[in-house]
Amino acid sequence: MFKRAVTVSFRARLISRRAYSTAPNAPLAEKLKVNGDRLWDDIHYTAQFSAPSPGGVTRLCADENDKKVRDWFRDQVLALGAKYAVNATGTQIATFDGEDNSIPPIAMGSHLDTVATGGRFDGPLGVISGLEVIRSLKEQGIKTRAPLTLFNWTNEEGARFFPLLGSSIVYAGQSSIDQAHASFSNDGSGLTLGGELAKIGYVGDGPNTFEEFPISAHFEVHVEQATDLEKAGKPVGWVEGWQGMTWYQVVFHGDDGHANTYPMYGRKDSLVGASKLIVALEDLAYDLNGYTTTTNIQSGPWGACNIQSKTKVVFCLMHKEAEGLEDMGEKIVKKIKGIAALHGLEYELERQVHLLPGDFWPEAIDCVKRACGDKGIGSRTGTGHDSTMTRLKCPTAMVFVRGKDGISHCAREWSDKEDCTEGALVLGKAVLNFDEYLKTKASKA
Amino acid sequence: MFKRAVTVSFRARLISRRAYSTAPNAPLAEKLKVNGDRLWDDIHYTAQFSAPSPGGVTRLCADENDKKVRDWFRDQVLALGAKYAVNATGTQIATFDGEDNSIPPIAMGSHLDTVATGGRFDGPLGVISGLEVIRSLKEQGIKTRAPLTLFNWTNEEGARFFPLLGSSIVYAGQSSIDQAHASFSNDGSGLTLGGELAKIGYVGDGPNTFEEFPISAHFEVHVEQATDLEKAGKPVGWVEGWQGMTWYQVVFHGDDGHANTYPMYGRKDSLVGASKLIVALEDLAYDLNGYTTTTNIQSGPWGACNIQSKTKVVFCLMHKEAEGLEDMGEKIVKKIKGIAALHGLEYELERQVHLLPGDFWPEAIDCVKRACGDKGIGSRTGTGHDSTMTRLKCPTAMVFVRGKDGISHCAREWSDKEDCTEGALVLGKAVLNFDEYLKTKASKA
Repeated sequence: MFKRAVTVSFRARLISRRAYSTAPNAPLAEKLKVNGDRLWDDIHYTAQFSAPSPGGVTRLCADENDKKVRDWFRDQVLALGAKYAVNATGTQIATFDGEDNSIPPIAMGSHLDTVATGGRFDGPLGVISGLEVIRSLKEQGIKTRAPLTLFNWTNEEGARFFPLLGSSIVYAGQSSIDQAHASFSNDGSGLTLGGELAKIGYVGDGPNTFEEFPISAHFEVHVEQATDLEKAGKPVGWVEGWQGMTWYQVVFHGDDGHANTYPMYGRKDSLVGASKLIVALEDLAYDLNGYTTTTNIQSGPWGACNIQSKTKVVFCLMHKEAEGLEDMGEKIVKKIKGIAALHGLEYELERQVHLLPGDFWPEAIDCVKRACGDKGIGSRTGTGHDSTMTRLKCPTAMVFVRGKDGISHCAREWSDKEDCTEGALVLGKAVLNFDEYLKTKASKA
Repeated sequence: MFKRAVTVSFRARLISRRAYSTAPNAPLAEKLKVNGDRLWDDIHYTAQFSAPSPGGVTRLCADENDKKVRDWFRDQVLALGAKYAVNATGTQIATFDGEDNSIPPIAMGSHLDTVATGGRFDGPLGVISGLEVIRSLKEQGIKTRAPLTLFNWTNEEGARFFPLLGSSIVYAGQSSIDQAHASFSNDGSGLTLGGELAKIGYVGDGPNTFEEFPISAHFEVHVEQATDLEKAGKPVGWVEGWQGMTWYQVVFHGDDGHANTYPMYGRKDSLVGASKLIVALEDLAYDLNGYTTTTNIQSGPWGACNIQSKTKVVFCLMHKEAEGLEDMGEKIVKKIKGIAALHGLEYELERQVHLLPGDFWPEAIDCVKRACGDKGIGSRTGTGHDSTMTRLKCPTAMVFVRGKDGISHCAREWSDKEDCTEGALVLGKAVLNFDEYLKTKASKA
């Protein structure tokens, strides 16, 4: 697998977490309403585009159901008069005129593809909320000065093809189209993102990078995936930043041998080494107050009588502080070396993604915070999103919608209709606030 | 997967381990010679029937190379005038007339299929040694009173299809043809032994059980897979018995969740539980002076951002003492319960094979021991063989051939030509000794 590391510097947190905004919204934002029934219906209508998954959605990147939901999305935005494009990594880009189309669009976006055990909200809620905002603005005759763009980003989850953030990472200049196309399927089948996108007809000639297609800002609605809002009794929140995340892949190479007869002494059992690493990862999380998860293990050779001689493990480390994340990384690399030495194993170690914790843009957060008013609190996300890529290029912020029990990537993931409606309204207001912000900034210039 | 437990009672060890026999061989056995060049050539000629595996052999049960070596075997035995049959589980049975065909044949046998990382000796050495004995007897005009049978047993290793001992277990009445046919492929592909045997044309109408096709005895040559002979400086050995072996399959069921955002507290991570089990298995081996190996792990769901919610582990426990094996089993079952309780996991546990340690038949061992003379020592095998099934029905013993460094199930598995030749000679002499033993027994009756 090719090597790709995304390293982003830490930005100091300037924003107080709990205080809500009493600052006013832009005049147009105060007028906006959204249609909660339509939003809710679309969330559940599109959930049909799924492999069997009672209550949830299994719509893996570039599978047949992903094609169906993409086709549905295309039809919706074309009906709303979008200028529509698909880029080389399959991202759908729908742009709607503003009063001054010389201004880079204000964007909204998330992803319609899901993990294998997906719920109905991560990330369809973000795309469908954006669609609802566009529809409501049009119905209510609210015209923005800047044009608006709605993105359906490809392979944010990395569920089928690794690495994750598959298209927004290219948009942000942290990877290339070729690298994204070469992303291999996690199931070891050898299928690639590029090949599978081509099969469903979603390799297009639209713009691939920020430089080709600059935007003024990016806003994304997402289910919280944690319990801060639930505990605070708030339907929505503004997202101040993200915790740091690192993905590693390690392959241990041991030696073939007979499972029954070869003495315990002298074995080079790669699976025992891998298991010690996985147990050590749990200890590491507790020791350093971070999170760790092993997301993939593959071991061989197959058979009932073989010592395992090759074991691959993919794991991620998460920490809210940059120092904590670096500390975790150093400690686990030492541990891997120690395990290899004690078990006589060779190993290949690759740090595939390394994203330090950081904050979104204050001017964008402020637009979301004002839109939330006293219905929201500030929060932080525990994971990466397409917004953690766009913020490398332009003001970016996110809107959180309360979820039940912090459950996500699970068929039981759930947000109430009223909370989703509130989230879409906050998204629309934030966009209108940012439009006003740009206007004010321009008039001062 | 269907449940199958093989439980065999422990037989006390009556045989002194190191003393070699000074008792004479049968007169015909003293005359026998074997052709080491021909034996050696056949071992390396048939190694061509293999998937790419430099130095070794990868000939999985019922694959295209297994078909080729089976066809080769059929041609060899037919050229020697065998009565030839293939039974429902694919085992090839070649029978050669004796002076009195009313006596159940004295059998030799092993398996031509291998593990994925097989060497050239386990088990082709056993089948090809038997072939060499038949050829030598014919050339030298040595006729036995009992007829002789040579078996090429199917799926002894369980390398492609689990459980192991796939055909001899049916022969010994411990399983059925239907159960054997339903054995699933270890790679999770859903292929079965029955289906794959049919594809290569090796589901036959020959006899399947001891009752349908009784034999007087079963002798098997095998590479030692340990270092007793090497350390003693002996080319061959008589095998007094086997250590106990138990295979378990455990499937841990946890809960789906987001790898990055879900708090460490409250996770139900099946892979962490499985890893703790694998580490505990290593401790168990050291604590109780047994052997343990995890031979298969499969975990899901796929994806970069999923907590693992289902993990299957297959492992085996080995111990030289019945009490030790039972103790290991009890302790690991308790450990599995504890792991499940502490991690909030559900589990399914299945004991698939349970073979207590035991001894081969004294009258058969004595025939091998006399054949070894001062070139051999007594030893024990650490694993199961087709002979550990036939001995449930008839006098059975094995011949060990010295291997290098105890390495087996590995391309580096090696036995010298002179040692293989000695092993085939001991096999032939043991068969002739047993023929003499039967004759003497009959004359006394």
